Amino acid sequence: MKVDIHESLLLRNQTAAEHNRSHFARRGVFCVNLMGSPGSGKTALLEATGRALAGRRTLAAMSGDLATDHDAQRLTAAGIPSCAITTGSACHLDADLVHTALHELNREFSMLFIENVGNLVCPAIYDLGQARNVVALSVTEGEDKPLKYPVMFRNADLVVITKIDLLPHLPRVDVGVIQSALERVMARPRFMKVSAETGEGMSAWFDWLSSAELNP
Amino acid sequence: MKVDIHESLLLRNQTAAEHNRSHFARRGVFCVNLMGSPGSGKTALLEATGRALAGRRTLAAMSGDLATDHDAQRLTAAGIPSCAITTGSACHLDADLVHTALHELNREFSMLFIENVGNLVCPAIYDLGQARNVVALSVTEGEDKPLKYPVMFRNADLVVITKIDLLPHLPRVDVGVIQSALERVMARPRFMKVSAETGEGMSAWFDWLSSAELNP
Repeated sequence: MKVDIHESLLLRNQTAAEHNRSHFARRGVFCVNLMGSPGSGKTALLEATGRALAGRRTLAAMSGDLATDHDAQRLTAAGIPSCAITTGSACHLDADLVHTALHELNREFSMLFIENVGNLVCPAIYDLGQARNVVALSVTEGEDKPLKYPVMFRNADLVVITKIDLLPHLPRVDVGVIQSALERVMARPRFMKVSAETGEGMSAWFDWLSSAELNP
Repeated sequence: MKVDIHESLLLRNQTAAEHNRSHFARRGVFCVNLMGSPGSGKTALLEATGRALAGRRTLAAMSGDLATDHDAQRLTAAGIPSCAITTGSACHLDADLVHTALHELNREFSMLFIENVGNLVCPAIYDLGQARNVVALSVTEGEDKPLKYPVMFRNADLVVITKIDLLPHLPRVDVGVIQSALERVMARPRFMKVSAETGEGMSAWFDWLSSAELNP
């Protein structure tokens, strides 16, 4: 019974996700679902993206958290008009929440970032209608997270390995081991290393966005 | 209906948790439920604890992850006999899983660490029968996590702020801001700063364990 209820929730979510997907297609919106642990650097990645793409793209974002609109405020300040989705006690966004937030954004945009609730488990199985799943994984999280949380990484289109400016201070972390773990788990391994702080590697992320946008 | 099902699951979990709690009381076992984000340093904290308390306590642990027994292997190597609880796709441990794992441990011990699935949301609402809830929060996760994930921190008996050896390399992180956020969210604010890497602050953690053990 527990499983049936869960399946029916997922089925209902899928219908809402397809509705969002058609909406994005009609409006020519490229949508990225950005997931990752709390503190993996999702907001910092988007802030740097907002500053770099200002004037070249019409961006928007929605930020999921249990409480506060801190992230939406940070993103708006960085040039990405954003709304907060506060989930109360829920551990992930679903397609209905995204649909409601779309009405709240109430503006035209061509690229939408959905910053999911910080959680390396639950968000992975809820389709939101996005064109791409991106997972932020910080080097401070250790080497074996892809193996320990495979569901999240299996369906990722891209993993952005973040905070690489901290690598010199993490003698126990070998980024090559993180990459090997991703290669073992991801269906189509695709990852890159960036530092939103120093800008290192960020151009590859912008190139990936531009390329993916052409084939949503 | 969704809520009813959830409440019935929590009620069933509560019964199993009380069963575990009586078991711990009869055996004189002090049990800590250690929670936190993926990569917050839970395993490193316990490894250092195992090495420090070797010969002074009879320890045991169970480690929850979606996949792999890496953490249980690390803890066993550090002197804490441990078993892995692999949850498949589940985002938290529940009292039944702990009960089953207790049989698997199959040895005498006076202090049990349950290392929960790395997740700052879902584990918070599942009682496992523990005497204390401890949350590991690393300084690399940023300053506002307690405000953004209040459910986890509200019911924590102690928050261990980890990886403080990295503070000199995190110019944007003020540990005082983390502490203020904890004071706003925790019902009974209690926190300490440690580095499992350098050992800084670890004696306060061992003192807290000894003191809490006397009043389970």
